[in-house]
Amino acid sequence: MITSTTGPQPADFADVRATNLAVVLRFVREHAPCSRADIAASTGLNKATVSSLVADLIDRRLVRETGLTENRVGRPATMLVLDGSPYAAIGVEINVDFVSAVATDLAGERLLTWRRAFSGGDSVNQGIAGVGAIIRRVVGRMAKEERQVLGLAVAVPGLVDVQGTVRIAPNLGWRDADIGGDLTKALRDPGFPIQVDNDANLAALAEQRFGAHAGASDLIYLTGEVGVGAGVILDGRLRRGRLGFSGEIGHVQLDPDGPACHCGRRGCLEAMAGIGAVLGKDPSQAEIQMEVEESVRLARAGDPATLATLESVGHSLGKGVSALVNLLDPEVVILGGYYVPLAPWLLPAVHEEVRDRVIASGSGGCQVVASTLGHDAAALGGAARVLDSVDSGRLPRVP
Amino acid sequence: MITSTTGPQPADFADVRATNLAVVLRFVREHAPCSRADIAASTGLNKATVSSLVADLIDRRLVRETGLTENRVGRPATMLVLDGSPYAAIGVEINVDFVSAVATDLAGERLLTWRRAFSGGDSVNQGIAGVGAIIRRVVGRMAKEERQVLGLAVAVPGLVDVQGTVRIAPNLGWRDADIGGDLTKALRDPGFPIQVDNDANLAALAEQRFGAHAGASDLIYLTGEVGVGAGVILDGRLRRGRLGFSGEIGHVQLDPDGPACHCGRRGCLEAMAGIGAVLGKDPSQAEIQMEVEESVRLARAGDPATLATLESVGHSLGKGVSALVNLLDPEVVILGGYYVPLAPWLLPAVHEEVRDRVIASGSGGCQVVASTLGHDAAALGGAARVLDSVDSGRLPRVP
Repeated sequence: MITSTTGPQPADFADVRATNLAVVLRFVREHAPCSRADIAASTGLNKATVSSLVADLIDRRLVRETGLTENRVGRPATMLVLDGSPYAAIGVEINVDFVSAVATDLAGERLLTWRRAFSGGDSVNQGIAGVGAIIRRVVGRMAKEERQVLGLAVAVPGLVDVQGTVRIAPNLGWRDADIGGDLTKALRDPGFPIQVDNDANLAALAEQRFGAHAGASDLIYLTGEVGVGAGVILDGRLRRGRLGFSGEIGHVQLDPDGPACHCGRRGCLEAMAGIGAVLGKDPSQAEIQMEVEESVRLARAGDPATLATLESVGHSLGKGVSALVNLLDPEVVILGGYYVPLAPWLLPAVHEEVRDRVIASGSGGCQVVASTLGHDAAALGGAARVLDSVDSGRLPRVP
Repeated sequence: MITSTTGPQPADFADVRATNLAVVLRFVREHAPCSRADIAASTGLNKATVSSLVADLIDRRLVRETGLTENRVGRPATMLVLDGSPYAAIGVEINVDFVSAVATDLAGERLLTWRRAFSGGDSVNQGIAGVGAIIRRVVGRMAKEERQVLGLAVAVPGLVDVQGTVRIAPNLGWRDADIGGDLTKALRDPGFPIQVDNDANLAALAEQRFGAHAGASDLIYLTGEVGVGAGVILDGRLRRGRLGFSGEIGHVQLDPDGPACHCGRRGCLEAMAGIGAVLGKDPSQAEIQMEVEESVRLARAGDPATLATLESVGHSLGKGVSALVNLLDPEVVILGGYYVPLAPWLLPAVHEEVRDRVIASGSGGCQVVASTLGHDAAALGGAARVLDSVDSGRLPRVP
């Protein structure tokens, strides 16, 4: 088998072995329980190589043997499954009014889900101090469970470049902040890698791996926080754009005569369908989570003013969603964050706009749904990104 | 070298050979003049295999030897370049007011560029008859030059599904039309494959292969015809969406109180920045090309009303472009079609809006430029798509 790239081949034997270990690990993730013979048959690697790779993965406690055997001609085969009991992947979301933390094991099972009220602080330093304290407690908990942390990924609502520097997070007031470096210092070189990414991007990765539409090739996640941003998965991969700045849909102008936006213009999607529009006030002056819960209570009770507001927000949101569907033709658009509890009242208007505005007949079959991952999608996506790193070959050393 | 896919391997020897032939052909396209040893060194194929593959490509007249040799230790090597003199790739664009045809050789050199006024006719049948007659003349010309046609790709302004069926081409009035099948019949089974694709998609492929920003990984092409559509290249590949319907940006609403759009709403991008907005009339009532030339003449002469119109169209276009840049973070947005002759008067306002509205500082370095491929980008893109097919292994038989 030859590759179709015309560039130079990887010459380093260690690289080839790391790549092959990752191939086998991914195969076990997707097909467990499976035998060494299954792996050899499907990957094209020979049996002796597979046995050696599996032994290595067992040493690293990434894979383990089960007592199960498969009925087949010849000797019964020992079956393999993911292990990973000594490991954890951590994701953290920093947002305007809260910090979330999620830890999962290697298989993606949740070990911990925390959420704390948080005000970004008046400076990056204050923010880092607060977030660092929370991360230390998560890491401490994992240590108690005798789990090694494979990595940490932090979600931030703003432009994060491909190196992980936060270029602008307008709603946090952060600019050109090396959050990864700052957290590494605050945690005193914790011995695991720290990545930083946009919140919508990480939430989209969470949906792709864990959500109700896991595995969808073309999926868009829309954050419903103080800001509105999109995570764009096309042809099976997150599309970050050239610098990593894709997904900024919050300031698409729906109506030049609309309500004032904090960006200085009028009628931006964020001003008409962000959480401030639901609450009818500047979100920096609100106890957002409590007030959203109150809106849900009022909507359930049939309060006419609340229902009218949610319908109007739904129509604005539907215009933004329609633009995304027309431009990118996804299988599904997933509404996250505070849109999730509000979805029963937002979705009818969203669906109406999408039905009317999408050019393809039947909206091209595109669904618009609320996230089933709850408010922690971006934090969970941080853990997903750590697992993605492991799956692409950044394996932990033998413990 | 193993692959990182976990799926089954291609078992068919003929497939592997076709893949390898394409690998060598692409290498020669990108690195000519080059030697057999260069190919072996870079692709990882052994020298005997490369010699056999090159012999096959020479038999097919896709590659030829030159007299050139390279100074190196040992025997001087015979150098290889693309041949392709016996072949042609044809692209045709059907639009509301014209049909364009372009033919290129295997290296992409233009052999022929035609443009004819055309009114889509009152039905698909009339349209096909008119376009079929033009294609027959192009094919006849290629036959005179003793060139075998490798394939034909037809650009249509509308939703084209991944099977090539035109689902809706609103400005042509076509719906659920199997243009490829109809043309195959009209041409009486011409013996080459006919593909159908969206005009913006094909124009984006032309820019990627032949334009001033050829090779850009993240590139958006915007058609400036009666309709406005986008061709989206991200991470080096055309992103069609799930059904092939991506790029529909024409009915993004810029202003709910804006001018009426033929879609029934008000203030769509197409109504505010399509060619009808430039001409100030329903484009179905216009001699578009002549009237655009008149606008250019008036703008050159400093006519205040024309300059004001173009400035206003430029601002609307700039809002649409800003939304694309914020959402997709491309390296370049290329304005095509009638925007090209109008660009000197549109671009200042477009640039102003992009500077103001793009969240990333310095617009993330994104450039907005007029196409250098002229009015034939979509037709040229048809030829590019045929060459793409050859490059991915659909090779002509030995003549």
